[in-house]
Amino acid sequence: MRIWLVTLLTAASLMFSPFSQAEETPENLILIIGDGMGMPYLSAYRYFKDGRAHTDVADVERTLFDRYFVGTASTYPADDTWVTDSAAGATALATGIKTYNGAISVDADHKPLTTMMEIAKDNGYLAATVATTRLTHATPAGFFTHVPSRRMEHDIARQFATPNTKGEYVFDLIVGSGSNKFRFTNDDGEHVDYLSDMQAGGVNVVESFAELTQQRQLPVAAFMHENNFPYVIDDKPRLAQMVQESLRLLATQDKPYVLMIEASMIDWCGHGNDIACAMHEMKELELALAFLADYVDERGDTALVLTADHSTGGLTLGADGQYQWRAAKVNRINRSLRSIATELADMPLVDWQDFISQHIPFPLSTEQQSQLNTVAALTSSDKWREINKILVDIVRFHTGSGFTTGGHTGEDVPVIAIGPWASHFQGQQDHTDIAKQYIDWIKKAHN
Amino acid sequence: MRIWLVTLLTAASLMFSPFSQAEETPENLILIIGDGMGMPYLSAYRYFKDGRAHTDVADVERTLFDRYFVGTASTYPADDTWVTDSAAGATALATGIKTYNGAISVDADHKPLTTMMEIAKDNGYLAATVATTRLTHATPAGFFTHVPSRRMEHDIARQFATPNTKGEYVFDLIVGSGSNKFRFTNDDGEHVDYLSDMQAGGVNVVESFAELTQQRQLPVAAFMHENNFPYVIDDKPRLAQMVQESLRLLATQDKPYVLMIEASMIDWCGHGNDIACAMHEMKELELALAFLADYVDERGDTALVLTADHSTGGLTLGADGQYQWRAAKVNRINRSLRSIATELADMPLVDWQDFISQHIPFPLSTEQQSQLNTVAALTSSDKWREINKILVDIVRFHTGSGFTTGGHTGEDVPVIAIGPWASHFQGQQDHTDIAKQYIDWIKKAHN
Ligand SMILES: [Zn+2]
Ligand SMILES: [Zn+2]
Repeated sequence: MRIWLVTLLTAASLMFSPFSQAEETPENLILIIGDGMGMPYLSAYRYFKDGRAHTDVADVERTLFDRYFVGTASTYPADDTWVTDSAAGATALATGIKTYNGAISVDADHKPLTTMMEIAKDNGYLAATVATTRLTHATPAGFFTHVPSRRMEHDIARQFATPNTKGEYVFDLIVGSGSNKFRFTNDDGEHVDYLSDMQAGGVNVVESFAELTQQRQLPVAAFMHENNFPYVIDDKPRLAQMVQESLRLLATQDKPYVLMIEASMIDWCGHGNDIACAMHEMKELELALAFLADYVDERGDTALVLTADHSTGGLTLGADGQYQWRAAKVNRINRSLRSIATELADMPLVDWQDFISQHIPFPLSTEQQSQLNTVAALTSSDKWREINKILVDIVRFHTGSGFTTGGHTGEDVPVIAIGPWASHFQGQQDHTDIAKQYIDWIKKAHN
Repeated sequence: MRIWLVTLLTAASLMFSPFSQAEETPENLILIIGDGMGMPYLSAYRYFKDGRAHTDVADVERTLFDRYFVGTASTYPADDTWVTDSAAGATALATGIKTYNGAISVDADHKPLTTMMEIAKDNGYLAATVATTRLTHATPAGFFTHVPSRRMEHDIARQFATPNTKGEYVFDLIVGSGSNKFRFTNDDGEHVDYLSDMQAGGVNVVESFAELTQQRQLPVAAFMHENNFPYVIDDKPRLAQMVQESLRLLATQDKPYVLMIEASMIDWCGHGNDIACAMHEMKELELALAFLADYVDERGDTALVLTADHSTGGLTLGADGQYQWRAAKVNRINRSLRSIATELADMPLVDWQDFISQHIPFPLSTEQQSQLNTVAALTSSDKWREINKILVDIVRFHTGSGFTTGGHTGEDVPVIAIGPWASHFQGQQDHTDIAKQYIDWIKKAHN
């Protein structure tokens, strides 16, 4: 009788609670990091996607971020800033331990902190990452390597490329960009080629998307670009495809996996105070999430959490006393400000207005025109930066997109969760709690 | 057999879900509005309360806002702005219907929208509000009255003071400030006294906190100040006491109640880009919440939701490229910038530096000193505003508190819920959904 009751109660809790709370540990773990994707980016993207100038009623469609939103996470590092960088953020999300800004999975004494990818490998999981940035950049680096400064990208590449005594690498799959940090001429003029080293060690190293689609066997190290990806607004979405190829490859082995996916370039647009750029990166992430939501729903054995390492730029919807954010105008901008500024810097002034109006189709004020005339005369290599500042002001004026900084900010970030384990992440938490839960599940699975 | 199963399942769902989801409707409803309390205010307050300059580990204590945080709400109005003001925000939260900015519970055609307080009265509830602002201000007004523009404060006062044909008022209890909108000389030079009118109609009108504590019978209209409350940072907390007195008075009648509580002045500090001012108003709200959390927990029959109508000021933690927010420094500011600026405006320049250092104890840069010297020479009535701007810059520089606007912004706001019905507000929602749920409960209770 007692057993019956317990069984019924368990079944009931699965059926009735708002998120059914699975008792078993998930088979596979997916952690998505929207670099720089603070809370305001979610609100902005909802209205950007709607794209209308006017709303009559509560009829704005919710995004996938809205639909699966469960809570928030604090992100302060272990130093005197309260504002984290991507290195300390990645360390917290990879190890469950806070460190100082700049640290890649090492503590204040520069001692390595064990990452969930290392624990995953030790427990028979595949360890994988997909990022829309250099694989030696702070976020992917924090999940696999240990250096006292994020700037040590060649050291990070060396750690990726160095097998242990059993000939095993720290990863099974890495997909991103930045082969130039793995193949370069060092300070002593020597040619270093970690890609050949990996290839010799049994890693399938590929340097194009076409090649990636042809891979049939892990380990794989895939570089889609020599340095950085272009912004999505200047190019096309690619994250969903990279994720699909990665899941295909992970399925070639009969093992569970831990997969960290980084939508890296929301942060970069945020640093540039470029709202349209950021919105297109959000769209890129939502496309990948649409695929992953179906995947997670179909499998039923995979936990998925999406969070951010921090917010970037200090974005607000509305600025300078305007009670207005013009989503429809943001929609009409069709190129990154950085790319426009760079091209303008090499263009005769006579063509500027026409060129700007093709990409930022709003009238320029007399003051903005005169500012542009002034910077057009500059000859320094920083010329594009000065142009870029004026473009940011033009967009701020016309769209009401406020930014307080070219750096990061310390507000709590969103926590979005899909699948039967979503309820574990409800409410307000610290970002280290997410890592601790993942690490706990990884350790439990084989005990 | 089937009945048994259902009973077991229901019991189980109550026991096992993370928030137990009561099947019955709540007896009493409390809706708290932190005016202007956007998401960044919650993060800022946590670190302000901690007050340390340095953190080593994840040991920052969570606030009551963190503990009961369940989700977020979108706040866009029904116009072309995407950014709401407090009038459209109050209308949405009072009626479940979006309107244009400036509207007090009327639609685009200026037709009245029925508020939850009116529905409450119709269904045998007591209708009550407590606010730390004028009772004719947008938020309290939106729950009880109907005017096409929030500026019509005398009309709002008249509606509060006008009984229906049965001699009943729209409220049972109103506690706030702003008796000067109820007792004034109108444009025709006539003396208007809605307070006497109410008194004659059977309302106990009181004009001090001492008097409020002596009341034993509803209806009560209580005005703690003739115009506005001073900022808490310049005065002392009062909201918790006002709430306690209100609950005492509501308990004198054997009826359920709907109580709207507004922490009104977070918004004002936000408009002033005054971070220390805002943090003291947050502390004020947390003190009230501490009392209410115990009250709700003990009763078990009361639903409580705390949200914001919008965010104000475009606050971010970190600004101008600094990866730092200096919570400890915000803690050392002991007076509102507006109050400092007003006093400076009447003070000889020779005393300024000393006076500023008593209240904002950070060294002034040479540039800040020279800016102060310049504005000290002004004689216009706006002098305090110019001084205030410089003080905002000084605090921004020293604390890293960024603001993008003197107005409102359109990001989603927090939703915090306490009690057995908290799970109804989990995840991302629109603010009208909160009102609709409350109205639904009010209507259901007697059907
Ligand atoms: Zn960044
Ligand atoms: Zn306001």
